[in-house]
Amino acid sequence: MRVLGEHLIVELYDCDIDIISKVDSVQNIMLKAAKAAGTVAIDSIFHHFQPYGVSGVIVIAESHFAIHTWPEHRYASIDLYTCGEKSRPWAAFKVIKKMFKPKHFSVMKMERGLVP
Amino acid sequence: MRVLGEHLIVELYDCDIDIISKVDSVQNIMLKAAKAAGTVAIDSIFHHFQPYGVSGVIVIAESHFAIHTWPEHRYASIDLYTCGEKSRPWAAFKVIKKMFKPKHFSVMKMERGLVP
Repeated sequence: MRVLGEHLIVELYDCDIDIISKVDSVQNIMLKAAKAAGTVAIDSIFHHFQPYGVSGVIVIAESHFAIHTWPEHRYASIDLYTCGEKSRPWAAFKVIKKMFKPKHFSVMKMERGLVP
Repeated sequence: MRVLGEHLIVELYDCDIDIISKVDSVQNIMLKAAKAAGTVAIDSIFHHFQPYGVSGVIVIAESHFAIHTWPEHRYASIDLYTCGEKSRPWAAFKVIKKMFKPKHFSVMKMERGLVP
């Protein structure tokens, strides 16, 4: 079977509260992560919620990256979905882990689209 | 433990090839699904790739919906990520299943953000 997409489901706990609270810092880190992964950003949306929380998505030529933050719980939920053999999603994860400074985290790797 | 997000990982196989090929039809169906789920769309990006394939994301007040299609494999990969007790992600799935007409599919439900 061939696998079309690789999807890292990332859970970050006890993050740096200042960093995950600000839409600018979240956006910068996610764009940096997309670059580190060797992906090509097509377009992105980043949104700050009142009173707190940031949501963001980047559509990349190789699928998408997404993030949602809950500063009140110091939690960030991240999806790194790539396709193609040239993408390096774990390099993106490395950037994310370094910049959001979670004390605990989990990553689950899923293979999406199993075709003959 | 409290769960912050509910994430449906949807794999659609043997879809209607015309429908998953066109950016307009993919966008319409995803926006209809977001409405059916009772979510509030904040912004969206839909992109058609050459020679084929569509990627799209909708940032909703309750997190995000995303889709990637591979018409050459009749496959569509969909993520329905919602938070809050008022969202109805399975209603979105119902719309998606009806409109993309997959002959086979799988759905996995993940709970994201387990906090005390």
